[in-house]
Amino acid sequence: MENIKVTIWNEFRHEKSDEEVRKVYPNGIHEELKKQLGVDKQLVIRTATLDEPENGLTDEVLNDTDVLLWWGHMSHEEVLDEVVEKVRQRVLHGMGLIVLHSGHGSKIFTKLCGTNTGELKWREQGEKERLWVVDYSHPIVEGIGEYIELEHEEMYGEPFGIPAPDELVFISWFAGGEVFRSGVTYKRGLGKIFYFRPGHESYPTYKNEAVIKVIKNAVKWAKPLNYPKSVVGNTKPLEEI
Amino acid sequence: MENIKVTIWNEFRHEKSDEEVRKVYPNGIHEELKKQLGVDKQLVIRTATLDEPENGLTDEVLNDTDVLLWWGHMSHEEVLDEVVEKVRQRVLHGMGLIVLHSGHGSKIFTKLCGTNTGELKWREQGEKERLWVVDYSHPIVEGIGEYIELEHEEMYGEPFGIPAPDELVFISWFAGGEVFRSGVTYKRGLGKIFYFRPGHESYPTYKNEAVIKVIKNAVKWAKPLNYPKSVVGNTKPLEEI
Amino acid sequence: MENIKVTIWNEFRHEKSDEEVRKVYPNGIHEELKKQLGVDKQLVIRTATLDEPENGLTDEVLNDTDVLLWWGHMSHEEVLDEVVEKVRQRVLHGMGLIVLHSGHGSKIFTKLCGTNTGELKWREQGEKERLWVVDYSHPIVEGIGEYIELEHEEMYGEPFGIPAPDELVFISWFAGGEVFRSGVTYKRGLGKIFYFRPGHESYPTYKNEAVIKVIKNAVKWAKPLNYPKSVVGNTKPLEEI
Amino acid sequence: MENIKVTIWNEFRHEKSDEEVRKVYPNGIHEELKKQLGVDKQLVIRTATLDEPENGLTDEVLNDTDVLLWWGHMSHEEVLDEVVEKVRQRVLHGMGLIVLHSGHGSKIFTKLCGTNTGELKWREQGEKERLWVVDYSHPIVEGIGEYIELEHEEMYGEPFGIPAPDELVFISWFAGGEVFRSGVTYKRGLGKIFYFRPGHESYPTYKNEAVIKVIKNAVKWAKPLNYPKSVVGNTKPLEEI
Repeated sequence: MENIKVTIWNEFRHEKSDEEVRKVYPNGIHEELKKQLGVDKQLVIRTATLDEPENGLTDEVLNDTDVLLWWGHMSHEEVLDEVVEKVRQRVLHGMGLIVLHSGHGSKIFTKLCGTNTGELKWREQGEKERLWVVDYSHPIVEGIGEYIELEHEEMYGEPFGIPAPDELVFISWFAGGEVFRSGVTYKRGLGKIFYFRPGHESYPTYKNEAVIKVIKNAVKWAKPLNYPKSVVGNTKPLEEI
Repeated sequence: MENIKVTIWNEFRHEKSDEEVRKVYPNGIHEELKKQLGVDKQLVIRTATLDEPENGLTDEVLNDTDVLLWWGHMSHEEVLDEVVEKVRQRVLHGMGLIVLHSGHGSKIFTKLCGTNTGELKWREQGEKERLWVVDYSHPIVEGIGEYIELEHEEMYGEPFGIPAPDELVFISWFAGGEVFRSGVTYKRGLGKIFYFRPGHESYPTYKNEAVIKVIKNAVKWAKPLNYPKSVVGNTKPLEEI
Repeated sequence: MENIKVTIWNEFRHEKSDEEVRKVYPNGIHEELKKQLGVDKQLVIRTATLDEPENGLTDEVLNDTDVLLWWGHMSHEEVLDEVVEKVRQRVLHGMGLIVLHSGHGSKIFTKLCGTNTGELKWREQGEKERLWVVDYSHPIVEGIGEYIELEHEEMYGEPFGIPAPDELVFISWFAGGEVFRSGVTYKRGLGKIFYFRPGHESYPTYKNEAVIKVIKNAVKWAKPLNYPKSVVGNTKPLEEI
Repeated sequence: MENIKVTIWNEFRHEKSDEEVRKVYPNGIHEELKKQLGVDKQLVIRTATLDEPENGLTDEVLNDTDVLLWWGHMSHEEVLDEVVEKVRQRVLHGMGLIVLHSGHGSKIFTKLCGTNTGELKWREQGEKERLWVVDYSHPIVEGIGEYIELEHEEMYGEPFGIPAPDELVFISWFAGGEVFRSGVTYKRGLGKIFYFRPGHESYPTYKNEAVIKVIKNAVKWAKPLNYPKSVVGNTKPLEEI
């Protein structure tokens, strides 16, 4: 089986500035994800972070990435516009994109959706979340149970400012009374996108086996294939007119 | 029945610079559309063009518009970014948007779709186009036949750089051998969007009765309703947690 | 505004056999719905029930119906197969269909969906349900708030054995920890279908103002229009081949 | 890579009764497909035909099938209802289904769609068909070009009596002036379905390399995975109510 080249992008700020977060993810969320996903030797993983030159996403890195994971929160605005546009074009040309948790408000997800994806309800009280599978036929849910239960998570509630997804895979139930479209897919050009809700920085969500399984499935689903090359622009007729 | 406030936006350049186009639309495409659509007294119509201040789309105009029609071609890049962003936010808050023909490459349609909507095949040889209805249950096709035939049109061919539409209403057949998704709908936030392919500036397409009927149906389908007010941001739990 | 001819079909068994249900709906669920919806004079309403000849759905009734409402529960199997097939053909030719609550397991909904729509989780403990709007742009939610709260309802939980809906309008939260796709639309041929979850026979759900508003909106959304007449079968070419 | 167990079902009547068809497919369409697809050693292929006992689809065969291909035409009505229902349940529980050409009118496809899928325009004049890819991101189009051209095929034209597909992969252009949604996917329960238009019995379409490539891709896309086991019926609350 061919390797999949994965780049995990992380804002990597909370983990440096906030004691509580550092306790959960001492080396940053990206390193935890790398460790967890890296158990699968099909995945060849690198990381990139906001404070690296070009936000860590040089042409060299992007062109060598099959699937990009994105975690950001407080500093969405600091990501460089030209980097965002390069990532967008890479997705349109086939790179997979997995947007995690507060990445919903990132420039890249907003631009690919066209809507105010930063808009939703939220609450940080560490309440219970239960993510119910609603599309049992999707490769992204292979090998997990009928729901994933997380004892403590940040709440995200509807309305979520996304377009109607191509596929709705998970719906979350929250103890405080809300629901949320927690796992949604989109196609944009040749690229496949999966948004997956859980993963607040204060809770060890990315150490949860089922959460990791879903992300791993998503990476495999989103990897680029040998797609037809499309021809656009001024073209001659194929039939006499 | 309540009035619907329609604003027809037109680039209005070809009609001034090109003799051939001026013959077809002497007062501009916007004035022809206003005349044709205005037969329906439910529609209260104004126009706006690129070379007016703020591209004719001041806050006052936008806030007084239920449905915006958009025709542009060569000068997409000259539309002001701040105007585009205001239009986008108005759509997300409920204004309908009808994108016509070469408007597929406009900033506003590209931004709302998230993809390279300017990409498609094209050819100006005045060949025959036949737009087949493929969603007979849609209000947009009310009162027309099973297809619309246009003797001479510009060809647009797949691949068309749009996301999978929420609804596919028309597919075009072209004499030269191509097909095209000619009538597609999207929802973005509270707003409804319809892209409708025909309408090259050199042909009298906007004098075709069935084409006008489709646009009129689309305006009525896209008009904003009294939608629920959504609440976003930090919210208290509804249940004890 | 033109009248809409509505037929409310009800199994009408519980209300006769069960004391508790009779207290809530002494004349049957159909009569309550007729009373509540009938306040809107645009709707011309008749009822039909299982124990009438031809289940109350003669050709005369069906051909004179714009939108059919369906409530059934314990006796789905007793509905005549030939009646079900006639209803299905009427939907495919444009009649709207609103399937209510336990109607999810009806022959007609199962046949139009193609799946085991009777399958879901359920529990009768009168727990709290909160139906969240997730498609704010849909005419079906016009004039209601961001959710509908029902103090006591039967629980329905995922997985719900439906195909991915064309549009997802409501998601329910239940006190016991489940979620459910509570308001979903489908198009089948010329016909529009809306499934709406709430309405257990033991609770006065159909006296709830917002629930009635949603059903009324759905009736108006589902009414047949003057759609194009489709031509099928062996046809001559439109172009020389 | 794990094997995929494929069963190719064929009506197998034309090939016996019609000289012209026998010339193209002397051993039947199923044997040609078996030969062509069988080059890929990941596929373990058996065949089944109408005139075998239980239409060749015994429990033993069905339970040992990952993906079922279906070609039928004149004798749809002779397929046993109980076999159709068993196939349907197998699809709902995860078996992939590839419906080919005139299989659009089969009982199994009609039942899984819920609509009159037998309805479409058709014409047997051996005209040119060009199948355009419209979803470049789909695994089903991996490795083919931007269209497939077939010099001689039966024409199928819109309106096609299917529900709006989950994904639209191909649109056909026909020389005679029609278009058709030629490659469409549906999910039904755990099962994935692909309908693929070309393959009239009088033309050597199933010897076309690109056509075979698409069917092979579809088989791999439709194979069942290790999906979550769903729980339905009366269930206890997960939270205190």
